[in-house]
Amino acid sequence: MRISELAAASGTSVATLKFYLREQLLPAGEATSRTRADYGDQHVQRVRLIRALTEVGGLSLARVKRVLTAMETPGLGRTDLLAVSQRALDADADAGGPGGEDCGAEPDGSESSSRAWKWLQARGWRIAPNDPFIARLDRAWAACDDAGVGLSSERLDAYADAVERIGTIDVASVPAEPDAAVRQVIVGTVLVDAVLQILRRLAQQHVASGGQGVSAPRH
Amino acid sequence: MRISELAAASGTSVATLKFYLREQLLPAGEATSRTRADYGDQHVQRVRLIRALTEVGGLSLARVKRVLTAMETPGLGRTDLLAVSQRALDADADAGGPGGEDCGAEPDGSESSSRAWKWLQARGWRIAPNDPFIARLDRAWAACDDAGVGLSSERLDAYADAVERIGTIDVASVPAEPDAAVRQVIVGTVLVDAVLQILRRLAQQHVASGGQGVSAPRH
Repeated sequence: MRISELAAASGTSVATLKFYLREQLLPAGEATSRTRADYGDQHVQRVRLIRALTEVGGLSLARVKRVLTAMETPGLGRTDLLAVSQRALDADADAGGPGGEDCGAEPDGSESSSRAWKWLQARGWRIAPNDPFIARLDRAWAACDDAGVGLSSERLDAYADAVERIGTIDVASVPAEPDAAVRQVIVGTVLVDAVLQILRRLAQQHVASGGQGVSAPRH
Repeated sequence: MRISELAAASGTSVATLKFYLREQLLPAGEATSRTRADYGDQHVQRVRLIRALTEVGGLSLARVKRVLTAMETPGLGRTDLLAVSQRALDADADAGGPGGEDCGAEPDGSESSSRAWKWLQARGWRIAPNDPFIARLDRAWAACDDAGVGLSSERLDAYADAVERIGTIDVASVPAEPDAAVRQVIVGTVLVDAVLQILRRLAQQHVASGGQGVSAPRH
């Protein structure tokens, strides 16, 4: 199909497609003349993926590019998959992200000073001590204190009980086929983040409308 | 304290503080001469809150302003609280947000065409039919399909079981005192979103390191 047809098929403008091509987010079509190229279904799918990641996932185009590169890494084993995709999605590694310049959290491995590390140990979650998300949890936890909405270890534990179920569903839904697995982990993580945020708002309303103190978490 | 002392106390530069003052994110200090003003502890707290919301919560300054305005709405009842804060945090209402211009989801109330509405009905969550988060769930759900990581109703239900626990913890943690409640709902929602995202990454690692298919969600 021609670029105008690709635009129609993917619900995008020709100008946007040309921008994606220039930025190498979209592979070039097959040249059919000096000024024309032919695009296929894989281009339609790529454009839809870019738009889903930016519009629903809220990723910057720089981060989309990193995600696409990670997805195309050949021979990515199941064990590397989580690490690579989490790195691709890591907001702090993206200078264009919110507060990217001066996020002060350093994963310094000095476990003794980390409230998050202590909490993780007490909880028994198996996490590598140098995992960058430990420092990020410290920072987000401190931000709650700074903002006057302190989060007790007990409340964090209650959240973690629920999130552990989410992680179990996530891991169980990774398909065996490698390409599908990469796509599921990388794309699924960012898009399902958006779904979970929306569900949280809806769940708050449901619970609040059922009266205060409706029910303890179900066991 | 003087502006330089406020900068030191809040870990911010004087230039940033002047920017916050100009943008009316930070109330003016008490003038002590034609060129000097005196700042108090409430200014330190306000600056910390702004930085927590932008750096950890990932909010734009435009959205921070809306959040602060919502927090200062006098006489906000418990019933309005969720609605007002959810509106203040609504990404689609923020033109500066990702894809803000062309997010095509319209909360049109035509329930018959909404997969999310049918799913919510089947689930029994009490949500107003015109709630804007229904259309957003439709859109996020469709984005998963577009991106090739379709989300079955069953998987969405499994996530919702976990998120319902999160919503219960959220609602139970709202304090009775009105000002504290406003702060908890508005600031707690955005900062705890960040905490939950980090916990999800850590939970995935914990579950994955325990071997595949570790455990079904606990009941």
